[in-house]
Amino acid sequence: MAGENGGGVSLDAALIAIDRACREGAVIRDRDLLESFAGDESEVAPVVPDAAVRATSTKEVAAVLAACSTHGVPVTPRAGGTGRVGGAVPVKGGIVLAFDRMDEILGIERRDLKVTVQPGVVLGDLHRAVEEQELFYPPDPNSWESCRIGGNLACNAGGPRAFKYGVTRHWVLGLEAVTAEGNVVKVGKPTAKGVTGYDLAGLIVGSEGTLAVVTEATLRLTPKPEGVATLLVFLPDEAAMEGVITAVLGRRLVPRCLEMLDSLALEIVRPQAGLDVPEGAKAMLLVELDGELDQLPAQVEDCGMAMLEAGAVDVLVAKNEAERERLWAARRELSHAMRRQANHKLSEDVVVPRTRLGELVERCRALSAEHQVRMPSYGHAGDGNLHVNFLWNDPDERPRVEAAIEGLFRAVVGMGGTLSGEHGIGVLKAPYLPLEQSETLIALQKRIKEVFDPRGVLNPGKIFPTSRTHRAC
Amino acid sequence: MAGENGGGVSLDAALIAIDRACREGAVIRDRDLLESFAGDESEVAPVVPDAAVRATSTKEVAAVLAACSTHGVPVTPRAGGTGRVGGAVPVKGGIVLAFDRMDEILGIERRDLKVTVQPGVVLGDLHRAVEEQELFYPPDPNSWESCRIGGNLACNAGGPRAFKYGVTRHWVLGLEAVTAEGNVVKVGKPTAKGVTGYDLAGLIVGSEGTLAVVTEATLRLTPKPEGVATLLVFLPDEAAMEGVITAVLGRRLVPRCLEMLDSLALEIVRPQAGLDVPEGAKAMLLVELDGELDQLPAQVEDCGMAMLEAGAVDVLVAKNEAERERLWAARRELSHAMRRQANHKLSEDVVVPRTRLGELVERCRALSAEHQVRMPSYGHAGDGNLHVNFLWNDPDERPRVEAAIEGLFRAVVGMGGTLSGEHGIGVLKAPYLPLEQSETLIALQKRIKEVFDPRGVLNPGKIFPTSRTHRAC
Repeated sequence: MAGENGGGVSLDAALIAIDRACREGAVIRDRDLLESFAGDESEVAPVVPDAAVRATSTKEVAAVLAACSTHGVPVTPRAGGTGRVGGAVPVKGGIVLAFDRMDEILGIERRDLKVTVQPGVVLGDLHRAVEEQELFYPPDPNSWESCRIGGNLACNAGGPRAFKYGVTRHWVLGLEAVTAEGNVVKVGKPTAKGVTGYDLAGLIVGSEGTLAVVTEATLRLTPKPEGVATLLVFLPDEAAMEGVITAVLGRRLVPRCLEMLDSLALEIVRPQAGLDVPEGAKAMLLVELDGELDQLPAQVEDCGMAMLEAGAVDVLVAKNEAERERLWAARRELSHAMRRQANHKLSEDVVVPRTRLGELVERCRALSAEHQVRMPSYGHAGDGNLHVNFLWNDPDERPRVEAAIEGLFRAVVGMGGTLSGEHGIGVLKAPYLPLEQSETLIALQKRIKEVFDPRGVLNPGKIFPTSRTHRAC
Repeated sequence: MAGENGGGVSLDAALIAIDRACREGAVIRDRDLLESFAGDESEVAPVVPDAAVRATSTKEVAAVLAACSTHGVPVTPRAGGTGRVGGAVPVKGGIVLAFDRMDEILGIERRDLKVTVQPGVVLGDLHRAVEEQELFYPPDPNSWESCRIGGNLACNAGGPRAFKYGVTRHWVLGLEAVTAEGNVVKVGKPTAKGVTGYDLAGLIVGSEGTLAVVTEATLRLTPKPEGVATLLVFLPDEAAMEGVITAVLGRRLVPRCLEMLDSLALEIVRPQAGLDVPEGAKAMLLVELDGELDQLPAQVEDCGMAMLEAGAVDVLVAKNEAERERLWAARRELSHAMRRQANHKLSEDVVVPRTRLGELVERCRALSAEHQVRMPSYGHAGDGNLHVNFLWNDPDERPRVEAAIEGLFRAVVGMGGTLSGEHGIGVLKAPYLPLEQSETLIALQKRIKEVFDPRGVLNPGKIFPTSRTHRAC
C-alpha cells in the first residue's frame, strides 16, 4: 500500500481531499507536533504518523475516513492516548484522527437518565458533570482523569466499579459512528430497550477502532448512590480471596468494588500508602459498598463480619473521605509505583473465572520462578480480572519475560479465561489471539471487519495477528 | 430457489445429507406432525415446512445447517414457538430446526454465579433451578412458562424486571453457536469481563436466528433477592406516570418493575383481577421492589409516599404472596384477556424515551379516534416500552388497523423511539424497518448477515423488508 510508507502519492491525494473538506488548520504535518500523536501508555514503540487531523465535527471525520479509504491510507483514531496495548499507535503510518477537540457534553437528560457526549470528553469531566445532577456514570478505568470516552468505547473500558455496575458496553444506548468509507450511521437506540435489527452499537464498542469511529455517544446513567463505604481487608494469602468474596456474595451483598493486591504488590504499595499491614497478612482487598446512607453501616458490618468469618486477618473501615481517598490514591498509584521498581515493565490484563483467581496467582508464582522475572499482580478480584506485571532491568532479560507472558496466557486460556478484561488486544496481544480463539472465529471477525472497512485502512495492525509483532521497550 | 417450494431436488439432497448425519427419527416429514412447526403466537399465517429436525446435539445442528447451506434450503430455527412477530414461522418453507429436545441445564456454577444451558431449556425451569440455589436469572418475558432460552436469546427478551436488571443480552457471557454454513464457534467469554476480539455473542443475541443458531449458552446469575414487595398504584391519567416514576427515581429507588396499564387496559382487566379501582383512577402502575427483607418495608413506604406526593390517586401494598400472585396473574392474563375482546387482535411493542410515554398514549388515543380502532395499551413504563393492542372484529376493518399501526410507528420514530423493545422485528415489522433505519444502516446489516450466511438460508424473510409482507389473521 502506497500510504504505508508515508510518502506515497496516495497519502498526498488523501491530504488534498481532507484539506478541501476540513477547516483550516485541522491537518497537522509538522513533525515536532506529530510526535505527540505517536505513542500511548503502552510499551509499544511510538510511530510518528505522516499527518494528524484534529477533527471538530462528524462531517470532518467522515471526510477524513472517505479520503483515506479512497486512497488506501491507514487511519488511526486517537482519543486520550491512555491505552495500554498500543491501540492508538499508528503502527502502519498514515494519518492519526484525533478527537481531543470533540470534547463537548452535548446534553444531560436528567429525567430520562441519559447523557449525550462527543468522543473527546474526558471521563472525569463526565463523572463530575453528571454527579452534580445527582446522577452516576459507573465505568471508572484508572486513567479517568485523562482518558476520553472515545477510547473507553473502543476498548470497552471497565474499572473497579465494573463488578457491581458492568463495563462501558452496558452503559451505551446509542452511537453515531462513521465507517471506514465515511458512511455515517446511527446505531443502537436512544431508548432504554430496543431489539430493532442487529446490535451494531455493542459490536462497535470494544472493537478498538477497527470497525468504525464513534462521533457521538448516548450513555445511560443511574441515580448517584447516596453514600460509599470503603473497607480494607487483609488476607493470610491470595488463596483466601475466593472464600472471602463468596461469603460476602452469600449474604447477598454486591460490593461495587473488590480490588485485590497480591503479596508482592502489597509490598510495593505499603510504604507509599502508609499502610499498617497486620502480622500474617500477605494479600489485600479494597472493598467498596455503596447505597443509602442509613443502610450502609449495617451493610459494612455485615460485609466485614462475613469476611472475618471466612478467614480475613483484619478488616479496617475508612473513617472519612480523606482516609478513603488515601487508600484509593495508593491503589491508583500502583501502576506507576511498579514502573519505578525496575527499568522495564509490562502489564497484562487477563481474566479467569473469579473462583480461580487464587490458582492464577499461584501459577504466576511458578512462572516467575521458572523464568526468573518479578511478577507482582493486582486487579479486580470480583471479576476475576488480574493485572499481572512483569518487571525487569536488563534488555537481555526480555526473552525470559516473553516466555513468562506466553506461559501466563496459556495458563489463563487453560483455566477458561480470556486474554484481556478491559485493555483490549491492540498491538501487544495480537500475536496471542490464536491461543484463545479458533481459526474459524478469527476468520469470521476478519470478514466482519471487511464489511465495515473493505480497504483495511481503519486502525490496521490491531487485534488480529500479523506476521510481525510490535512489542518494544 | 428449488427448496422454496418444498419438492425441489435441493431439498431432497439436503435431507439425504441430514439423514446420514443425524440419529434415526430426527427428521420429521409427516404432514400432520409438521403442522405443529408451522406457526408461533403471532398473527402471521402459519406455513407448514417441508421437514423438521428435532436436534439433540451441536453436531446434528451443524450437519443440518451445512446441508441446508450447501443445497440452498431455508432453515427456520424454533425454540418455544412463543414469538410475537412470526420469527419462528418458516415463511419460505424448507426445514424447521427445532430445539425442544436440547433442553438440559448443563451446570450451575454457584460460586461463579453462572449457569450453562442448552437452547431448549424452558425459561421457567431455569428460574426454578437457579432459585433453588438462592441465585437469580432476571429476564422474565410474560411467556416464561413456555418460552425457551433459544428464543429469548434470538429476540433479546426482556420482561417486567428489565427495568432494574436489563434484558437477556446483559446476562449472556458466552455462547456456542453454529453459523449458517455449519461452522461451530465459541463466542463471548465464560468470564465476567472480556474484550478479546469483537462482541459476537452480543451480535448474535437479538439477531432473531438470522446470523447463527445457539447450541449452548453460559448465562450470568446474581444472588436471589431476599424479598419482594408489590405495590398497586392508581393514577388520575396516563400523563401522571412520568412525574410519579421520576419522583421514585429521585429518591434513588430503582424498582425492579414499573408495569403500566392505560385506562382501556384497566377496564379490561378490572373484572378479572377483582380490582377495586378507586374513584378518579384512570391508569395503573404495578410496582415491585426487591432487596433485603429488613430494608424493604422502609423502601415500600418511601416509594409509596413519593408516588402519592407526585399525584397518585392511591397506593395499595400487596399484603402477602397470594395477593401478589393475584395481581401478577391479572397482568400476565392481559394479553389473553384482550384477545377475548374482539375477533382479531394485533399487538405492537414500541419504545420511546420513558418521559414521553404519556405523550405516546395520548397519540394512540388520537390514532384510535382517527382510524376507528380500539387501542388499549400496557407495558413496561420504566423502560418506555409500550405494548399497543389493536382490536377489531370484521376483516374489512383491517386496512384501518394497518393505517393506525403505521401511524403509531411514525409517531414512535418521531419521538426518538424504536419499533421493538423485546419482541423483535420478525415478519410482522420487517416492512416498517426503513421508517426507523437508514438505507446505509440496513445495507450494513445485510452485509453482516452475508458474512454469517452467504447463501441466505438462515431464517429468511425476517427483519429485513422484502417486497411481500406476511401479515395475516
